[in-house]
Parts: sequence; structure tokens; C-alpha cells
Amino acid sequence: MLFKNLNVVTSRGIKKCDILVENGKIKDIGSFSAKGIDFNGSMTIPSVIDMHVHCRDFNQSYKETVETATMAAISKGVTGIVEMPNTSPPVNNEDIFEERRALFKEKAYCDYGINFSVTDDLSFFNGYKFIKIFLTETTGKLLFKGDLDKLFSYKKPIAVHSDINGIKECVKLSIKYGTKLHVCHVSTKEEIEFLKRYKNENITVEVTPHHLLLPKNSENVKPDLGEKKDREALWKELGKTIDVIASDHAPHTKEEKKKGAYGIPGIETILPLTLDFAFRKKISFETLASLISENPAKIVSNKKGFGIGKDADFTVIEEKEWIVDSKKFYSKSKFSPFDGMKLKGTIKTVILRGEIVYDGETIKKISCKEM
Amino acid sequence: MLFKNLNVVTSRGIKKCDILVENGKIKDIGSFSAKGIDFNGSMTIPSVIDMHVHCRDFNQSYKETVETATMAAISKGVTGIVEMPNTSPPVNNEDIFEERRALFKEKAYCDYGINFSVTDDLSFFNGYKFIKIFLTETTGKLLFKGDLDKLFSYKKPIAVHSDINGIKECVKLSIKYGTKLHVCHVSTKEEIEFLKRYKNENITVEVTPHHLLLPKNSENVKPDLGEKKDREALWKELGKTIDVIASDHAPHTKEEKKKGAYGIPGIETILPLTLDFAFRKKISFETLASLISENPAKIVSNKKGFGIGKDADFTVIEEKEWIVDSKKFYSKSKFSPFDGMKLKGTIKTVILRGEIVYDGETIKKISCKEM
Repeated sequence: MLFKNLNVVTSRGIKKCDILVENGKIKDIGSFSAKGIDFNGSMTIPSVIDMHVHCRDFNQSYKETVETATMAAISKGVTGIVEMPNTSPPVNNEDIFEERRALFKEKAYCDYGINFSVTDDLSFFNGYKFIKIFLTETTGKLLFKGDLDKLFSYKKPIAVHSDINGIKECVKLSIKYGTKLHVCHVSTKEEIEFLKRYKNENITVEVTPHHLLLPKNSENVKPDLGEKKDREALWKELGKTIDVIASDHAPHTKEEKKKGAYGIPGIETILPLTLDFAFRKKISFETLASLISENPAKIVSNKKGFGIGKDADFTVIEEKEWIVDSKKFYSKSKFSPFDGMKLKGTIKTVILRGEIVYDGETIKKISCKEM
Repeated sequence: MLFKNLNVVTSRGIKKCDILVENGKIKDIGSFSAKGIDFNGSMTIPSVIDMHVHCRDFNQSYKETVETATMAAISKGVTGIVEMPNTSPPVNNEDIFEERRALFKEKAYCDYGINFSVTDDLSFFNGYKFIKIFLTETTGKLLFKGDLDKLFSYKKPIAVHSDINGIKECVKLSIKYGTKLHVCHVSTKEEIEFLKRYKNENITVEVTPHHLLLPKNSENVKPDLGEKKDREALWKELGKTIDVIASDHAPHTKEEKKKGAYGIPGIETILPLTLDFAFRKKISFETLASLISENPAKIVSNKKGFGIGKDADFTVIEEKEWIVDSKKFYSKSKFSPFDGMKLKGTIKTVILRGEIVYDGETIKKISCKEM
């Protein structure tokens, strides 16, 4: 399969090329004379990986399912997601993890990673690729009560739910052991200034679009939306201390939301919002590629990212204005704080391992895999 | 120990700060009121790591020794080196490796990594951190004759002596297994264009200052110096496809050199030459920091690099012109193709794990360690 005439955005610039795909992987990048699908120089973003997604399902299928969440992902250029473990029941034992894995294998429209939550029993720890810990009580009941020092001494990557005290403890242990640490959804100036000082190559930092954009108290989310000074601190460190933009897609019914549920759906706005940042020159396209594609790929999977031998996942886009309308979401959660917002940049074609899985109108299911 | 009023160059910019050191590590970075050594805003480069050094010693002590090579390193701001295994006798068995290690432990003035050369017997492979392979006959007798596919399947980092065929084979296997590959001293347009296409986060690429600067046939080195087109291709990819500048410090006596020996001493010119690139705006200071400090640190050791918890290794410099004079080298190899060259940027103070090991005049020996 040959995809011709693309302008691919990476951290190293925008490069005009054809992409030759074989067995779902990029076999070659260059200029080829063979026939293929011609994209007439369209701008293209390599595989977006959203590192912070709640798909619900199980007892919360009424809010969202793996199927609807991953269809929502694919429809907006997200070809890989990492799911958080605070489902109901939560992913904190082997049986549930295997059940979850089977569910994804059957239902997912995009590639996936499944976080395992360690609470006290560290014996489960070694078998899982993605580990999430909560050092503060949040919406789930997954507070970590074990030996944190011992957990970090295993030197396996750990994601932590952000709050300043938890961050401080984890950063200290990450430095002590050289353990990789991913700090989820930072939201305050205090957090970012702390992380800016302690940052090294083992510590990665994530922010959500809503913490960058929305004023304090305008939405019920966890962590709380910040003040202007917090948002300014986050913007200043985008692409510097902050490595990753992720959605924290957290679907609810409209009724639950009215009653004060925490979280908003975000998987269908993460690429559109960040594209808009780039088209309006709030960040460069190179930084965009790092934040939503390359850095998550480095953290999550060495098959992802743009290059020969990598999965052939990319999204063709167009610089066209459109208006966010949550009624058209694939997600069951049909509301958005960004409803009515005029954004620059639409999703034309989404390619997952060399197959067109979204053509601007319909979604195609292919066999997806754990990252 | 408190070092005050430094302007530290990193890939994220130049940052004015004080550095608080405890037990040889950076304890904190910021602005502190306590008393300390005041550097009056001097520009400072974090620990330079030279990933390609031949220290000779053993049967070739008349050319250079671990002692003289590492004194040479320290005198010019290089606080860590990685040594190549083609010594005499070569580092390709356990006994010699342990002998080498003991030698470094006793004699080295800077931190070190010791490459082990795998030729055919892969059973040694797993014990060593740094593995170098030669897929072409060069100055040593260390041609790799084993099962290359199997070697890469172990997924342990491998450094390869560059030549285009060897590079192609190794890149293919690095992509197949996701194995980290460091390509030493690239020198041709063909190599760099190949690597540019296949580059991913597991593949790192090194260049020497002499391949960037010297015209074809002006010096006897391995690989050969390139044409103008080759040098232009290398310059264009500095900080993009090329991650690392290393010296390939290869000492000889003047007599041997006259008789056609391959290689030149380089450890005392690597930081001065690259500083000169930055002062003359051929590269940015940010790129300089990546090429000689941060990227080598990422490849070699997670204790190195600039940040809280890292080794307190840094070099204070001054924007002063001076003229290269190899007669003043600490290296036994007192010749240089750069003799008489006017360079911008002198080395004032070198700090290794919080101790001033060079003050512009004398070198101090502290206990050094394997990286």
C-alpha cells in the first residue's frame, strides 16, 4: 500500500513524502513512482496516542463502553489510548485485568494500553506494563497504601495521579532509583514549578486541554481547574517541562453531570483543540507532534511514532474552520465545554496500521492490539 | 557546597542559577542566600561526556595511558569518557575487561565506561554495559564473526563502527528487535541520508569534529575524511539526525603519525571546538548542550546530565579567544590538525561531583567511577 504526497508533521519539521506500507508497518518513506492513494500534499499527523482515557464499560456501560470510546477516538485521529484503572469494578487484580483485556481485544477500534492499579499488594506489580497509583483519594477507591519506596525500587514505569504532595514523594523516589515516572494531568503553577526544577529524562509530565483553556470553577473536573496564573504557567512550559497533552476523557450521562459528577468527555476534542493551537500559532506544529504523538509513543510503545519499521498510523487533516458540536460525538457522553467553539483543523482520513479506518464519514473496525 | 551565579546552558536555554551540591550530587538548583563560590554569572556547560575515546595503555603506554588521557579530558571540561575496546591486548574477554576496569579505577581522573568487544562468542554478551562491534576490518582485529541477528535479539545497547554496509545491517536489526543502536563517527553523505530516513528513538548517531571540519585527505583517519558534500550533509543534520559529537581521541607518537598511523588526538579539542561553533553561531548553545552533554548522558548513564539528583559535573567557561597549541596538551600525543586555530571559548573551572578538579592551572585527582 502506497500513500502519496503527504506533508508529515514531526518534531523535526514538516516533510513532504510518500509512505510505503507493508504488513501494517511503514516500510519506506521517500518519493516513489508506483501508483498509490494521492493525498495532494495534505498535512498529516502521525498516530496520536491519548495517554489518559476512561472508557467506563463493565458496570458503567450506560456512560460509555470500550466500543464507543474507541470509535470516538478513531473518528478524531486518536489511534492509541491508555486506559486508567478506576473502572467499576476497578482493574486491581488479575482476573479483572484479564477480563478487561478480553473486552478490549473484542471491542476496541484503536490500539490500547491498560493500566493496572497497585493499591497495597505489590506482588501483582511485575506482570503489568502500565501501573497507575493514586496517592490522594479521588473518584475511585484506589488509594495506594503500600510501601512506595519498595514500589519505585522495582524500577518499572509508574504513572501517578497528580497532587502536589504525591508528586513530591514520587519525584524524590524516581530520582533515588532512576525509575520512570509519568505525572498525570498537572494543573497548578505550584506543581509545574516544582516539576520544572526536578525534571529529568525519567520524569514525564502531562496536561489536559481543559486545564490549559478553561477558567476556574467553569467545569467540575479532577484536579480542579486553576486560576489564570496556573494556566499561564502551564502554557509557558508546553513542550518544555510538559511532554504530553492527554484528554482525561471522563464520560458521564448529562443527568450525572448536572448532579455534579467530575470529568468531561475529551477524546473527540484533543486533536482538534491542539491542531487549533498550532494553526493559530500558540504552539508550533513541531511541538504539537511531540506533545500528542512522539512523546506519548516514547513512553507507551516503541512500535508507535513516525519512522521506518513503526506502525503505519497517521491522520490526514485540513486547515478548515468548523464548530464543535457534541451531539455528533461517537462517545455516549454528548456534552462538551467546548461546544460552539470555532476550531481550525478538521480530520479527513485516519489510517491505522495502513488501513483507512475513518474516511471522514464512516468508521471501519480492524483487529486492534495491546501496545 | 554552593556554587553561585552561574549561567547554565541546557537544551532548554540558558538559565541563571545557584547550584547546591551534597555528596557529589546536585541537591538543588535555584537562588540561595547562603554563602558559596561566586562565579559572577559565568557561562557553564553541564558534564561533557566523550563517547568515543582510545586511552591506549597496556602495551601501548608509550602512546597514551589511562592517566594521561583522562587528565587531558579533565583539563578541557570532559568529565566522562567511554573507551573503545581495541586496545592491545583488546578488551574481548573477561580477564582483560577486569584488568582494564582495575586500571581505570586506580588511574582515571574522570568517570568512565569501558566497551567490551563481541567478536564471535556471544556468551560474554550479557555481563557488559557497553558493547562495540566492528563489521569491517579496521585498526584492531575485532571483526564481528558471530550471529548478528542473535546479538540484536538480546535487546542490549550496541555501538557499531560505522561503514555504510554495517550501518544498514544494524539499523535493520535495531528496527526488527527495538534494540538500541549507537552509530559511531559517521562521515559520508550516504550514511547520513540513510540514517536520516531510518532514524527512530532507538538509533543514535555520532560525528567527530574532524569529520565536520577537515578537508578530504588532509589527515589520516578512520573513517576517511569526506568531500565538501559529505561535510555539508553532516552539518545540516547536527542536532537532528546527529545526536552526539565525540572526539575519537586516537593518540599516536609523532613518529608513528609520520609513518601513516590512523587517528588524531581529540579529547582536548572537543569542547573548545564545539564551544567555538556556538560562539560563532554555527550551532545554538542549546544544540551544543544536547550534542556533547545531554544526549551522551542519556545514552551512557542516568546519573549524568544536568538536574537535581544528578552528578554535580559542570564546566565554567569564558568567551575569550585563544590559539590551539598541542605542545600544552596533557595527552602524550602532542600534535593536532587544529594547531594554530583561533578558537572562541576557554575552560576556566571544571567541577566533577562537586569538587573543583581543574582550576585553569592544575588538575586534582578524585576517586572516579564507572558510569
